[in-house]
Amino acid sequence: MSRWQVVVAIRLKAEILDPAGQAVGHVLQQMGFDTIAQVRLGRLVDLEVEAEDREQAVAVAAEAARRLLANPVLEVFAVTEAREVGGHR
Amino acid sequence: MSRWQVVVAIRLKAEILDPAGQAVGHVLQQMGFDTIAQVRLGRLVDLEVEAEDREQAVAVAAEAARRLLANPVLEVFAVTEAREVGGHR
Repeated sequence: MSRWQVVVAIRLKAEILDPAGQAVGHVLQQMGFDTIAQVRLGRLVDLEVEAEDREQAVAVAAEAARRLLANPVLEVFAVTEAREVGGHR
Repeated sequence: MSRWQVVVAIRLKAEILDPAGQAVGHVLQQMGFDTIAQVRLGRLVDLEVEAEDREQAVAVAAEAARRLLANPVLEVFAVTEAREVGGHR
């Protein structure tokens, strides 16, 4: 087993309105960021996983996202990174 | 100018406690995810930026993160992705 740092990115589905993101977008406009056209807010979950290999680490993280971390009605998730951080033991 | 989809990842500094992440970690343990050792929660911001090139799109997103999106006392941010999504005009 080795230790993996896995990143899960969770975003609202494209068809779901994001009023908090819109509010941030309005503030950016008021601050002079007139080249920023759209803002959407999502979530990141950093997991430290003990696994045999990258494939297993990604599978565990995806299962955790599917069963708990993400809301399947509103959100989509992706495992965006899996980096080995600890040696085998 | 072209249109860029830029992703900003915002995380708590390593030395900042994350009780919400710990709570999620405990629930995962109770659900049987005994290989997940640590959970930390962060934020994602997806920005659509008009810019001359990738470098400018990343710079605008980083400036927005520095001035508004991230809390510099508690958080660190990184621009993790910049993808061209619209043609030149």
